[in-house]
Amino acid sequence: MPENKKGLLIVNTGNGKGKSTAAFGILFRAWGRGMKICVIQFIKSETGKWGEVKAAQKLGVEWHTSGDGFTWKSKDMDETTARALKGWELAQEKIASGNYDLVILDEFTYPLHYGWLDAQPVLDWIKTNKPEKMHLIITGRNAPESLIEMADLVTEMTEVKHPYQKGIQGQAGIEF
Amino acid sequence: MPENKKGLLIVNTGNGKGKSTAAFGILFRAWGRGMKICVIQFIKSETGKWGEVKAAQKLGVEWHTSGDGFTWKSKDMDETTARALKGWELAQEKIASGNYDLVILDEFTYPLHYGWLDAQPVLDWIKTNKPEKMHLIITGRNAPESLIEMADLVTEMTEVKHPYQKGIQGQAGIEF
Repeated sequence: MPENKKGLLIVNTGNGKGKSTAAFGILFRAWGRGMKICVIQFIKSETGKWGEVKAAQKLGVEWHTSGDGFTWKSKDMDETTARALKGWELAQEKIASGNYDLVILDEFTYPLHYGWLDAQPVLDWIKTNKPEKMHLIITGRNAPESLIEMADLVTEMTEVKHPYQKGIQGQAGIEF
Repeated sequence: MPENKKGLLIVNTGNGKGKSTAAFGILFRAWGRGMKICVIQFIKSETGKWGEVKAAQKLGVEWHTSGDGFTWKSKDMDETTARALKGWELAQEKIASGNYDLVILDEFTYPLHYGWLDAQPVLDWIKTNKPEKMHLIITGRNAPESLIEMADLVTEMTEVKHPYQKGIQGQAGIEF
């Protein structure tokens, strides 16, 4: 690693495609350099057979899903909130361990935005406990303003054109 | 593969980070599903030791670099143009072969935007020759309007905040 190594806080937000995907691209690059990586997904269910999960398994990248596959449309908000909390506790453990070069909290803006987790204590915890050289990526729409202020690198993905508009369904290996 | 499989033309453009990175995230996902992949980079030099190149080598993903590491600031435009043409000829061969599920032309908007290649014949060629079920991803700033019109999925990456603004250098494994 170069001398100037500083662990970045990276946020990929906006309404377009590519927020999680760009995080997985960084994972790919980081894995290429032999970095130690942990991914925690906050919305996707444990049972989903996503291309990225298959790839991570093949590469031996540590990967956790804490969501129930439901979202802000969930009918059982206690369950959704409990899962977000469980995911966040796992994230705290992994981040604080100092064992990783890169941690990805995928779709972590949703628990913050919808109030399943209190945003300010979460951000304060990150500020205090993130190891200085560890990179942390947070993805999802509606990133709280306080998170954007705190972040080093923020990209907004905007949808210009989507195949749904032409009636084309999501394609395996590309969108999931 | 699902029955509804349709090869998408995907464009990641805009001034923000994450255009190539999101393409590599799709590569990661597609590789997880066992897809056959080819990447051609149009700007990066052959000798660069990029994290993504290292990762691709480890995974056995076919990867070509056709650039000279120079760009629109190049002092030898004949050389830059010749390399773009060489890269495009290779891309045509790979696309037309029908051997791939996914082809990525990374930073391919630059030769089109700067006129090293004539955009319209290139786009006409793609329209006629891209295998129906093959996905094609083109990345780079300043995607020509005619490319955007033709594409199925277009995302614009906008830079909200960049660490350079705070004087932090690019980090290995994250940005390259």
